[in-house]
Amino acid sequence: MDINKLKKIVYEENLNLVKNDLVILTWGNVSMADRKLGVFVIKPSGVSYEKMKPEDMVVVSLKTGKKVGGKLNPSSDTPTHYELYKKFTKVNGIVHTHSMFATAFAQAGEDIIPLGTTHADTFYQSIPCAKKLSANEIKKDYEANTGKAIIKEFNRRHLDYLATPAVLLESHGPFAWGKDAHEAVKNAITLEAVAKMNFLTYSINPKVKKIDQYLSNKHYERKHGKNAYYGQK
Amino acid sequence: MDINKLKKIVYEENLNLVKNDLVILTWGNVSMADRKLGVFVIKPSGVSYEKMKPEDMVVVSLKTGKKVGGKLNPSSDTPTHYELYKKFTKVNGIVHTHSMFATAFAQAGEDIIPLGTTHADTFYQSIPCAKKLSANEIKKDYEANTGKAIIKEFNRRHLDYLATPAVLLESHGPFAWGKDAHEAVKNAITLEAVAKMNFLTYSINPKVKKIDQYLSNKHYERKHGKNAYYGQK
Amino acid sequence: MDINKLKKIVYEENLNLVKNDLVILTWGNVSMADRKLGVFVIKPSGVSYEKMKPEDMVVVSLKTGKKVGGKLNPSSDTPTHYELYKKFTKVNGIVHTHSMFATAFAQAGEDIIPLGTTHADTFYQSIPCAKKLSANEIKKDYEANTGKAIIKEFNRRHLDYLATPAVLLESHGPFAWGKDAHEAVKNAITLEAVAKMNFLTYSINPKVKKIDQYLSNKHYERKHGKNAYYGQK
Amino acid sequence: MDINKLKKIVYEENLNLVKNDLVILTWGNVSMADRKLGVFVIKPSGVSYEKMKPEDMVVVSLKTGKKVGGKLNPSSDTPTHYELYKKFTKVNGIVHTHSMFATAFAQAGEDIIPLGTTHADTFYQSIPCAKKLSANEIKKDYEANTGKAIIKEFNRRHLDYLATPAVLLESHGPFAWGKDAHEAVKNAITLEAVAKMNFLTYSINPKVKKIDQYLSNKHYERKHGKNAYYGQK
Repeated sequence: MDINKLKKIVYEENLNLVKNDLVILTWGNVSMADRKLGVFVIKPSGVSYEKMKPEDMVVVSLKTGKKVGGKLNPSSDTPTHYELYKKFTKVNGIVHTHSMFATAFAQAGEDIIPLGTTHADTFYQSIPCAKKLSANEIKKDYEANTGKAIIKEFNRRHLDYLATPAVLLESHGPFAWGKDAHEAVKNAITLEAVAKMNFLTYSINPKVKKIDQYLSNKHYERKHGKNAYYGQK
Repeated sequence: MDINKLKKIVYEENLNLVKNDLVILTWGNVSMADRKLGVFVIKPSGVSYEKMKPEDMVVVSLKTGKKVGGKLNPSSDTPTHYELYKKFTKVNGIVHTHSMFATAFAQAGEDIIPLGTTHADTFYQSIPCAKKLSANEIKKDYEANTGKAIIKEFNRRHLDYLATPAVLLESHGPFAWGKDAHEAVKNAITLEAVAKMNFLTYSINPKVKKIDQYLSNKHYERKHGKNAYYGQK
Repeated sequence: MDINKLKKIVYEENLNLVKNDLVILTWGNVSMADRKLGVFVIKPSGVSYEKMKPEDMVVVSLKTGKKVGGKLNPSSDTPTHYELYKKFTKVNGIVHTHSMFATAFAQAGEDIIPLGTTHADTFYQSIPCAKKLSANEIKKDYEANTGKAIIKEFNRRHLDYLATPAVLLESHGPFAWGKDAHEAVKNAITLEAVAKMNFLTYSINPKVKKIDQYLSNKHYERKHGKNAYYGQK
Repeated sequence: MDINKLKKIVYEENLNLVKNDLVILTWGNVSMADRKLGVFVIKPSGVSYEKMKPEDMVVVSLKTGKKVGGKLNPSSDTPTHYELYKKFTKVNGIVHTHSMFATAFAQAGEDIIPLGTTHADTFYQSIPCAKKLSANEIKKDYEANTGKAIIKEFNRRHLDYLATPAVLLESHGPFAWGKDAHEAVKNAITLEAVAKMNFLTYSINPKVKKIDQYLSNKHYERKHGKNAYYGQK
């Protein structure tokens, strides 16, 4: 893909976060990778969504994690994106936000378990809340260690990162991903909606249980399975 | 009615869902039937509200439930609409959404009981939460069985589908209907507002009880009864 | 005041309800009285805010409560407005809504007690929740009896209707008023904000108590007292 | 700075409160000081955000707290701003709002404790809730005493006002500040978001604890410390 086209997509999907009420001020970032070019493009750090332009997006090497293009500093969360792109090799879009309900679950240190088909349509299982980092992991290489903690959590739980394309970080907030930046943003939107619905559901009925596995399977399969029949071909 | 006019109405009422914050992404659909033409028109599956056009709406036979016009695939929920049109013969508009508060009640598996006149103005009784489908009902003909479960629930409770024009499906979300697509959307908007008010009311006073039947009667009658005096003639 | 000017004000203040998220669909109405002309002007019944025009506003006699001008039927709540104008003789603007948080308190059957200066700036005391009507009061002259129930509640509690310009009706929702339609709408906006703040405050600290009377006095006096110093002269 | 430029900034940042849903009606005010000019500029009292113009902003002496320029009365909260500017000598922007969630914590009489990195990015410690004023402090010089109560609370807790640039006043609402009006508004926005997240987090998990101090340190330092690496140089 042409690097300017990639910058334009990343720019637009960052604005898409604002449009969908997932971020305020400068709290969030979208990146997108092009494996052939060997780079990913990410929002610059601390720049307001209103003022930034497509050409302000920063280019980072998928090999080294270092900036290889653009004038501004990349998002401070760049090392987290880098760690994820290294291990989640089919992921080419990543989103980080501090969206209200997903962040509240992260701060509460709780998984978001599937309570309905809205969840099952996008996330095959509970959205895991990865345990908080240790003092040492925070002191040095904090952002890279954040990415490593996500991967460790997915390994520990034997989760398929394509079937459950989001995570919460305890005391912090959510990350979501997908095959490109657009899908990653869609998953971040869905994550926030599902978090809000879970919050409301528990408030109505604190004893509610995870939905039946066959309902999860059905909804996930009809959208993402081999014989998926949702949407257009 | 001219089929293109029908498509335009269905298109506009689908956008009306977005305008009234009942749907995000592609989560929801409106259909409208014309009994003389023997068809209903419904939103295509998985197409974004922003990009779709009136001519993208899909025409489905009221006899067979199969597509008889339009290029795109109809909503995956089409068999649910079809079952409802077959049995609820005075209904000519149906809406499905994953609106936040109504879905939370559905996920909690709870009816929305009448706590005030806002409810009574539109829904004569509790909005029922139909029990979740069995594994077998989900495995095969899931969407048709969803429609059948709604009808079964209305029969079991001896409910008048015109006096209580909405339902919740456990672990899923709400459906609403009316004499046309416009009324169905109005009922879906009211359902969500009533769900939110119920949620807040219970949070303030967990012991609140159903309103008196004579208040329900009064409000329902003044809007929908023989001597209705709400609105213009 | 010229009757057309009065219609224009009532029209604009009705739209102001929509703009401030106090109403959806056709749920709410604003009226304004001109004591010299001997009339009040009110929204027509069941007409959408988007379609209505200033000339659609309906003129009602302050003597008889009957329509004396306009083509459409007046709001079904007209007899409630009429009863209030008859007894609250310094009130010349009245608003009825089903705004979410105020309605939730009404449905819960609870007063909104003063928990902070936001409340005290506009309402000198608790906003009372008037008890629900009896079966007989509902059966005949329901809307007039609603107005009478409000007045009875204010008398019973020895409340000054100018110092506490709003009420909740159990199982129904709020009314607010003021010296004109604009002030009435301002009070309806404040009522909803105060209701929401109370809701949140109780959720954080269920044991919170009414604020000190001297703080109530101070805030009410600095805005509405003899030596008021808030705002411009 | 040119006084008209200062007025324009204060005007724009007051509108910024509306844009960010921190105020309704006339509830809130922003001021900004210029230490060289020896003045601060503040919103006029009780004037609607829609109607006011840059030239309506009021100029107040940093020496006396009295109006020295402008036709309108300054905000009734002017003496609070004045007391803060006197003691918080590195602060040149102050914001007061009745934003929903921050006010709810103030009404509940509770600190907002750090539950995640969103908090730690802006506030080094708990946002303190200053105890309510006594009857005497309210009766005379209420607004000046409000400022003094804030300063007393910061002294009592040995807080650095630059590291924790906000406070709640029991039974009232929040104040936030910064090096200029823009930063003060940014901090007021963050305060409201953090208050909402805390509210939601406690609802999900009432037993949640303050985040680890080393995580607070890390996030605060990466944005505000000597070796800060967030944002652009």
